[in-house]
Amino acid sequence: MRTLLLVGIGTGNPEHLTVEAINALNQADRLFIPDKGAGKADLADLRREIIARYVTNPSVRQVTYAMPVRDAANPDYAAGVDAWHDAIAERFGALIADIPEGGTGAFLVWGDPGLYDSTLRILERLPQREELTVRVVPGITAIQALTAAHAIPLNRIGEPVHVTTGRRLGPVTEDTVVMLDGRTAFTDADPDLHIFWGAYLGTPDQITIAGRLGDVAQQIIETRKAAREQHGWIMDTYLLRKRD
Amino acid sequence: MRTLLLVGIGTGNPEHLTVEAINALNQADRLFIPDKGAGKADLADLRREIIARYVTNPSVRQVTYAMPVRDAANPDYAAGVDAWHDAIAERFGALIADIPEGGTGAFLVWGDPGLYDSTLRILERLPQREELTVRVVPGITAIQALTAAHAIPLNRIGEPVHVTTGRRLGPVTEDTVVMLDGRTAFTDADPDLHIFWGAYLGTPDQITIAGRLGDVAQQIIETRKAAREQHGWIMDTYLLRKRD
Repeated sequence: MRTLLLVGIGTGNPEHLTVEAINALNQADRLFIPDKGAGKADLADLRREIIARYVTNPSVRQVTYAMPVRDAANPDYAAGVDAWHDAIAERFGALIADIPEGGTGAFLVWGDPGLYDSTLRILERLPQREELTVRVVPGITAIQALTAAHAIPLNRIGEPVHVTTGRRLGPVTEDTVVMLDGRTAFTDADPDLHIFWGAYLGTPDQITIAGRLGDVAQQIIETRKAAREQHGWIMDTYLLRKRD
Repeated sequence: MRTLLLVGIGTGNPEHLTVEAINALNQADRLFIPDKGAGKADLADLRREIIARYVTNPSVRQVTYAMPVRDAANPDYAAGVDAWHDAIAERFGALIADIPEGGTGAFLVWGDPGLYDSTLRILERLPQREELTVRVVPGITAIQALTAAHAIPLNRIGEPVHVTTGRRLGPVTEDTVVMLDGRTAFTDADPDLHIFWGAYLGTPDQITIAGRLGDVAQQIIETRKAAREQHGWIMDTYLLRKRD
């Protein structure tokens, strides 16, 4: 039996690490660091910074692996994701085989392993899944980093909240958080909504913009484009809320 | 000017504290600890344990205050909450007046200050709100503690998630997290749904039950009742998901 830890590391601020996460990283025989290519080098650097800062157990070994890239040209989105997850599962299988028998490996997962992250699902594809003990350590999500940055409550008193993706954003009937939006889906929403937008949340590069959507949408589009060019990547999240 | 820190402390596991939260607590001149009465003594004890474990700055002073109780007999829910929040705001005003000029006070907020917590909203009622700098430190929510305990993803691939309260739970058309459910609202839901339930998440008393709702609902009701009697309080959360 081997143990796999899926450790949530928050959204880019090394201080998002919980004590539980730090203890988990120090228990691991192997820490797996994805290399997502030159454009996302600061994401790998962040994981290395976290390890340098918090991992004090000298017997922990870091293993960097090349992360397969999704074929964005595949017109069938679901099939493209499926093939991509198969490729990642194969890579994970090799990493896990390298964990000592009875030992522990850990993935440092952006945000929280439960929210819009595929690691848990990809592990289900492994032929050796039954021989693995999987433990999840929760982490700060972009949703919490967003509301903290704006110092706002996510929900209104006793009211529900909807969490969705840019791809699935429809008419906004209740407070809605949008994640994984690569194409500024907010531009199709009611301009009278209030938007609370944030990028690089929790990091020194954090940017926030808030206001009536019709008034700030163009500013967000331009800010987002310039930031993406400067950093080579962007992660942004926003809350759409009906104004009182 | 005074600064108020709203520090998310997670759901009962002292190891849910982030490094950012620990640093924030050590910067405060005053730490405000609510006393919610004998029935909830372990909640106050948890805050004291967190402080004992992580606060190393000897100049930090703890201030315990009696937390006003909501009049649950008020038939008008909104009016009852409104009067209750006014009473808390008055208490907060007195606490803040006791922070040294230019100093910092901190509230230790269960879970995350953005999710089903009223501290931010109550601060808006203070006449001295304009003279306060408010900073929010995110914390692990019951949602993350729930999915971590069950080692499941919250969402399906690219699918939305609905977060609501027991009071507002309606027909479940998408993955739905229910919080603040004092009356087991799941008993009215489709018995063919899958439920992932958890109480005292993250603590040594954690209980989890998962299965087809029709098969496990009675077990959850009985477990919940016995645990509530044993501890004097309960906090539980659950995810309702259509089965594949």
